[in-house]
Amino acid sequence: MQKRAARPNGFPRKRFRFHPAQIVAFGFAGTILIGTLLLTLPIAKVGPGGATFMEALFTATSAVCVTGLIIVDTATYWTGFGQVVIMLMIQIGGFGIMTFASVIGLAVLRKLSLRARVTAASEVKSVGLEDVKGLVVGVVRISLIAEGVVAVMLTLRFMIGYEEPLGRAIWLGVFHAISSFNNAGFALFSDNLIGFATDPWICLPICGAVILGGIGFPVIVQLRKHLRSPLKWTMNTRLVLVGTIVLLVAGTVYITALEWSNPKTLGPLDWPDKILVGFFQAVQTRTAGFNSVDNAGLDSATLLGSDVLMFIGGGPAGTAGGIKITTFAVLFFILWAEVRGEVAVNVFGKRLSRAVHREAITVVLLAVFVIMSSTAALMVMTDISLDRLLYETMSAFATVGVSTGITAGLPVAGQVILILLMFIGRLGPVAFASAIALRDRRTAYEFPKERPLIG
Amino acid sequence: MQKRAARPNGFPRKRFRFHPAQIVAFGFAGTILIGTLLLTLPIAKVGPGGATFMEALFTATSAVCVTGLIIVDTATYWTGFGQVVIMLMIQIGGFGIMTFASVIGLAVLRKLSLRARVTAASEVKSVGLEDVKGLVVGVVRISLIAEGVVAVMLTLRFMIGYEEPLGRAIWLGVFHAISSFNNAGFALFSDNLIGFATDPWICLPICGAVILGGIGFPVIVQLRKHLRSPLKWTMNTRLVLVGTIVLLVAGTVYITALEWSNPKTLGPLDWPDKILVGFFQAVQTRTAGFNSVDNAGLDSATLLGSDVLMFIGGGPAGTAGGIKITTFAVLFFILWAEVRGEVAVNVFGKRLSRAVHREAITVVLLAVFVIMSSTAALMVMTDISLDRLLYETMSAFATVGVSTGITAGLPVAGQVILILLMFIGRLGPVAFASAIALRDRRTAYEFPKERPLIG
Ligand SMILES: [K+]
Ligand SMILES: [K+]
Repeated sequence: MQKRAARPNGFPRKRFRFHPAQIVAFGFAGTILIGTLLLTLPIAKVGPGGATFMEALFTATSAVCVTGLIIVDTATYWTGFGQVVIMLMIQIGGFGIMTFASVIGLAVLRKLSLRARVTAASEVKSVGLEDVKGLVVGVVRISLIAEGVVAVMLTLRFMIGYEEPLGRAIWLGVFHAISSFNNAGFALFSDNLIGFATDPWICLPICGAVILGGIGFPVIVQLRKHLRSPLKWTMNTRLVLVGTIVLLVAGTVYITALEWSNPKTLGPLDWPDKILVGFFQAVQTRTAGFNSVDNAGLDSATLLGSDVLMFIGGGPAGTAGGIKITTFAVLFFILWAEVRGEVAVNVFGKRLSRAVHREAITVVLLAVFVIMSSTAALMVMTDISLDRLLYETMSAFATVGVSTGITAGLPVAGQVILILLMFIGRLGPVAFASAIALRDRRTAYEFPKERPLIG
Repeated sequence: MQKRAARPNGFPRKRFRFHPAQIVAFGFAGTILIGTLLLTLPIAKVGPGGATFMEALFTATSAVCVTGLIIVDTATYWTGFGQVVIMLMIQIGGFGIMTFASVIGLAVLRKLSLRARVTAASEVKSVGLEDVKGLVVGVVRISLIAEGVVAVMLTLRFMIGYEEPLGRAIWLGVFHAISSFNNAGFALFSDNLIGFATDPWICLPICGAVILGGIGFPVIVQLRKHLRSPLKWTMNTRLVLVGTIVLLVAGTVYITALEWSNPKTLGPLDWPDKILVGFFQAVQTRTAGFNSVDNAGLDSATLLGSDVLMFIGGGPAGTAGGIKITTFAVLFFILWAEVRGEVAVNVFGKRLSRAVHREAITVVLLAVFVIMSSTAALMVMTDISLDRLLYETMSAFATVGVSTGITAGLPVAGQVILILLMFIGRLGPVAFASAIALRDRRTAYEFPKERPLIG
């Protein structure tokens, strides 16, 4: 039994009037609004007139939430100005979510360690402005370094392999580097990256940036410090790294095997290209949303497997979406402990804190509820098949951005649902999990214990 | 921390050489085998020759697991002998699952109460043969009474409303009473109960039997004893009753609203008939599997909502399938506790035992895994759309028996998957949950605690 704690959730009262989640939600909404206004300007759109409000709102939300779903073609509908606005929104969205989730993560971990030594009151620390500044600087530095390296690689390739003039090659390199490190999936080609499907010099740097952005800031920081001493890695780092490798291998095998002889996707390719494209697709489906085959041609079973990859997503406190690898891993280890008949849920030699079980379950249940009800609503509105609609809602919620091409054709109400899904999917899991983890629990008194039958 | 317990899981060693779940699995498999052999006899099939092994195996599995999926028409393919065999298998399957789950439930509850007063060693009790005998007698008595009442009602209606001769009316009454109380969904009409869609004198007694069988033996026993003193009801009874009402109302509203003007289903009916059919469909979709409209004509969104109803299913230790209302309710109350920020998960003024959280999660995760992988496998094998395949696998796993009519056309491998799903779905959740609940947990030592980031 636990009493009402005097100290509020690790954040000093005077510095934050709002909960950080509220600040970030307002910040995201504000950025989307500004982006929407900029995109409705006539100079943002090719040809006469400006974009409609809905086109601008959808694009801005998709960019700030680093999703990549589009209802107008990024390459041909927007001018250079419009594309720069999109790129900046992606960068702001990426910075925002990484910083926010890292601050929240720090607060959660500090709260836990405080609980463990609750008597040492002098050691009470909270997350102050200095910490936030430090995190912002770290996030910006790592993002710019990663984006810079990938931008140079892509620029060189666009110059050498595709004879683009220097200026355009740099622009393409920078845009796609930012879009990939931030897991946004926006591309400056009307067919996304299908034109580069068999070019590893384009595909692999983009995959590298996507994976790096997707494992999350805390893991990147730890790898920089302790790359060669895995014994020092936290449970978070281990789960994210192992989970990433498992999902990449399983995803590549699943997609490549199912699409191997599909004439609309991998069928016409040689076998090394099949594997390259299968791997690319597995990397992108987890969270980034680029595509090097036409997703509309994928087999239904591939779509279903992709839904699972999207739902799980990437690492926490990164640019990836979904419920996060760690959340999924917690459920897996609970299951494993039950199957093996163990009292505690142990993960790589550490005991999993019990509070985390319920956090993970709650995030998953809410995510399932949101996705299912959105899908049902879209089914009522349209005649599109379940596999495509589920792929679309999963893509929006997990801020992935892949689509079988139905986005633009949805009714306005359907597009509004996707906008809400992107926003909720981007901020919801981390905000909700942190709200649970940081809250001071209250118990009036304990009820007597009882249990129903299960199964 | 908990030591290895000396006493094994509540069952005395000498009386049971196998775990009860193993005995029941062998029993079910044996009954299916005998039924299969009987159904391959030429006297079981109309016309020359006998049924194929696959037809007989599928039908026997569907009957013993009280599912109701069929690949040949019960009404016209089987002779009276074959139909009697099916009826007997339904009855044996229903008795079997109710007794098994009740015995298991008793053992789980006794183990829990023993733990609560672990010092009182003299009070140690286990589930012995007398208990099992008592439960069997109780199950048989309640089943026969309920089936008898419904059989009489149906027989009268078939005589009076449809001018069936006495013998045939009794046969129809008995068969459909057994099929409905045991939630089997087999019917002796080629269009199932579509011909009686607007006849409340047929539909409502069948719904009553289905609901009664589906709330489970422990709830029926408690209602008989303490109908008028709800304060004495266990958490199990409360959850099942409240959950049943909520699901029936929500299901009726959802289905009726979505199908209201669908020309293939409720469209042509008057509004009172729309509501009757919608209610009937909501009752049947949860677990029994009769249908009074053509399921193939249902809207995709209705199929998706039906999937949810099927997945949840009915009460534990009854003839219903699915993960069970209680399992779903546990997840719901965990979510609710997290949203409200409470330390303990409280259900109707009782604290939910913590072990139950992990039991419920484990059952749900395994169920999702089994259903998803079966669905993906069927998607690879066929060109059928996801909404129909998911409806089919959910129907098999939750032993519901509704179908959009694709069962007979599936390849043999697909039908084998459905057979396995019916068997696993019938015994899996209760066997797995009980194995978890009854096992003596072992802990070598405790690891230090740590947590990853969630969301
Ligand atoms: K994305
Ligand atoms: K059934």
